[in-house]
Amino acid sequence: MLALVFDGKVRLRSDYPAPKVARGEALVGVRVAGVCSTDLEVTKGYMGFSGVMGHEFVGQVIEGPSAWKQKRVVAEINCVCGRCDMCRSGLSNHCRDRTVIGIAGRDGVFAEQVAIPAANLHEVPPAVSDEQAVFAEPLAAAYQVTRQVKFQQSDAVVVLGDGRLGQLVARVLRSLVRRLMLVGKHAAKLEMAEKQGIQTAAVEEFVPRADADVVVEATGSPRGLELALRTVRPRGVIVLKSTFATSEGLNLSPAVVAEVTVIGSRCGPLEVALGALASGEVDVSALVSRRYPLARAAEALRAAGEPENVKVLIDVQ
Amino acid sequence: MLALVFDGKVRLRSDYPAPKVARGEALVGVRVAGVCSTDLEVTKGYMGFSGVMGHEFVGQVIEGPSAWKQKRVVAEINCVCGRCDMCRSGLSNHCRDRTVIGIAGRDGVFAEQVAIPAANLHEVPPAVSDEQAVFAEPLAAAYQVTRQVKFQQSDAVVVLGDGRLGQLVARVLRSLVRRLMLVGKHAAKLEMAEKQGIQTAAVEEFVPRADADVVVEATGSPRGLELALRTVRPRGVIVLKSTFATSEGLNLSPAVVAEVTVIGSRCGPLEVALGALASGEVDVSALVSRRYPLARAAEALRAAGEPENVKVLIDVQ
Repeated sequence: MLALVFDGKVRLRSDYPAPKVARGEALVGVRVAGVCSTDLEVTKGYMGFSGVMGHEFVGQVIEGPSAWKQKRVVAEINCVCGRCDMCRSGLSNHCRDRTVIGIAGRDGVFAEQVAIPAANLHEVPPAVSDEQAVFAEPLAAAYQVTRQVKFQQSDAVVVLGDGRLGQLVARVLRSLVRRLMLVGKHAAKLEMAEKQGIQTAAVEEFVPRADADVVVEATGSPRGLELALRTVRPRGVIVLKSTFATSEGLNLSPAVVAEVTVIGSRCGPLEVALGALASGEVDVSALVSRRYPLARAAEALRAAGEPENVKVLIDVQ
Repeated sequence: MLALVFDGKVRLRSDYPAPKVARGEALVGVRVAGVCSTDLEVTKGYMGFSGVMGHEFVGQVIEGPSAWKQKRVVAEINCVCGRCDMCRSGLSNHCRDRTVIGIAGRDGVFAEQVAIPAANLHEVPPAVSDEQAVFAEPLAAAYQVTRQVKFQQSDAVVVLGDGRLGQLVARVLRSLVRRLMLVGKHAAKLEMAEKQGIQTAAVEEFVPRADADVVVEATGSPRGLELALRTVRPRGVIVLKSTFATSEGLNLSPAVVAEVTVIGSRCGPLEVALGALASGEVDVSALVSRRYPLARAAEALRAAGEPENVKVLIDVQ
């Protein structure tokens, strides 16, 4: 089958073997996939991944448990053992033996077909289009912030980063807090958020005053945390959403002195994200910048790395 | 007066001007002072401090509000404005305009006398000796951990660092959790903790298994956080106690992936520390490695940087 593979280099392969479907898994035909910053980190060596890239998608079940046949689906990306201490304590997203679709030990979705544990599937409601459903995974990651921080309506919240994830986080927080500010580098991206009623500031004009109750760091840059530390108030909370393949010089002493809480945040509740897409609570329509067919997936990857683009989609079927 | 001063270099000065006592302040004669790792960081440029060094002490009030005259005292090191947003919201330790004794904008205690706001003073109970009372400030910093993390008796807790602060944190946590481990580099220091009934491990034999519920990072080394990240379980908590003058390469992606919470922790409740010293709940007697007269305070500073020493005291009066 056709697939975009990373094996030290990004390669489009037309001869990639079709997925072997294990017990409990479904074979899913990918319809649309999305490119995430984590995919770009994978090409820099993140997680030492090798295989079919990609983890954001909407697809249709081809083979698998009868309840799922022909269903239009999205999926939890963490494939778990169900037996380790994490799984047994209800933290299966942190399974010790997990594989992660297109990120760790398991082929991803930039391909015609993908094998996925049936337990990971979520049916897409009819009201949600493919173009919306492909946002379910990153939108769930945005909702995860609201499961980790108890927001007060009166909180002053700053989201750093106007890219894919920052846009989604700001849309999720918009109705939860009265004082929300999205800080970014790109006028066109900030305008997208403004159109959703979100207050924005260009980073070169933003003056951090150590007075935000919560800062969500979604810049995708190791330098973002330094700005977050200057933006958050003493005893405030920084939510870290960015992951990197590389280390950079960082001094956390300001976090110690100001007794800041830094919370790492990753995957979130797909059912909540699908509900928000179905109800229109979160509008993702303006966020798609470019679309490419699977045969041009390598171009899609490059486009996702260009600062003027937000979400880049790959049309598979 | 005699004082140990840092002005880019560490200097013992015999001609340092006696403190000017402002309104609301007391003039305190220092009896015994303690050397903290933060003092060593100050000599590397931490906080850009210049002035009389030192912030751990026990002294006796010479002049000041009548209620305090002749009282034996220790003191909160953060001297606050009482008017800023932090002070008004009950977070006066994070006062925007604060000075910090011997660390930021205010002369410290490696001197014959020091001026301190009366509001910062705590009387030392008769049951607490000078040699114990000088531990009140760092012991309060150790207790701060228990105000920021809700420990469960069943928690597995690892304290990284067998130095001054790690020793105190382990002594504080000993009665709170059943599974406590102090990890350090120095056999003699680990033995001190063992004598207090604390389980210990040498760092070269310690295998991090990402299974500790809480890790307290008190190594005083920027590398300590990396070990903490490998020691804590997914969704666990790391308490950061170390502050540094310098940055180092650090990748927080593991904290994001494991959704770890990192909490900066600084000064704590002096009254709790004094109570624990008075009751014998925390035994600090074995932690004093060396004592020097004020005239040899520069030697005391050097001794505090030697790995075989735990607490180094400076006898002033």
